[in-house]
Amino acid sequence: MDNSAAVQPRFIRFDDVRPFLLTDGVSGRPLFGALGMLNLIEFEPGATVPPHSHPHEQLGIVLRGMQALVVDGEAHELLPMAGYVLPGGVEHSAYCGPEGALVLDVFAPVREDYLERWRADE
Amino acid sequence: MDNSAAVQPRFIRFDDVRPFLLTDGVSGRPLFGALGMLNLIEFEPGATVPPHSHPHEQLGIVLRGMQALVVDGEAHELLPMAGYVLPGGVEHSAYCGPEGALVLDVFAPVREDYLERWRADE
Repeated sequence: MDNSAAVQPRFIRFDDVRPFLLTDGVSGRPLFGALGMLNLIEFEPGATVPPHSHPHEQLGIVLRGMQALVVDGEAHELLPMAGYVLPGGVEHSAYCGPEGALVLDVFAPVREDYLERWRADE
Repeated sequence: MDNSAAVQPRFIRFDDVRPFLLTDGVSGRPLFGALGMLNLIEFEPGATVPPHSHPHEQLGIVLRGMQALVVDGEAHELLPMAGYVLPGGVEHSAYCGPEGALVLDVFAPVREDYLERWRADE
């Protein structure tokens, strides 16, 4: 996959980035590097992400609202300025509070599946 | 370096993370993964970061205030919800506005120099 756009310095406004649908009620605005990526995700009120896993390491920070990450049957309810690290391969699900949530997810390496889906919308 | 703390899921509040000094007037609260890391950095009003480079890819998002990144003699003044990608090896400097700034920096791979400095403060 051509990821050469990542090799130049880039400066963007996330508002200008075309969002793509992650799952019902959850959309993401990605910024792809070569080694890692950001994904600014917005949960509509009450939206949920079903259990899943991926080989990529995931880090992140909650920016607005509440995002709960459920790992090993335990729900971690995260408020703004809470951060997390999920090693690759760890199954997790997510839900948000009644007011929705804004969260910055970070993946290393790049989620090529996201890059493909995001480009497919062009 | 022992980075094994990164291999378990972790949930933190950045307020609880011990900050370390990056340069005069600029401190960071790091969250280390195995493949990447977050660094929540706070600029005091008027603080600057002198020109430097590192082999690590750097991505980030401005959360409060204004952070300017200067690359190739051009200043990119970034407001909240602006993002950036700097490939490894690109020289850059930074300054903030009169009200300071809160910025989330993301590095891949992990900045082992930061891990070492942060642990040295324990």
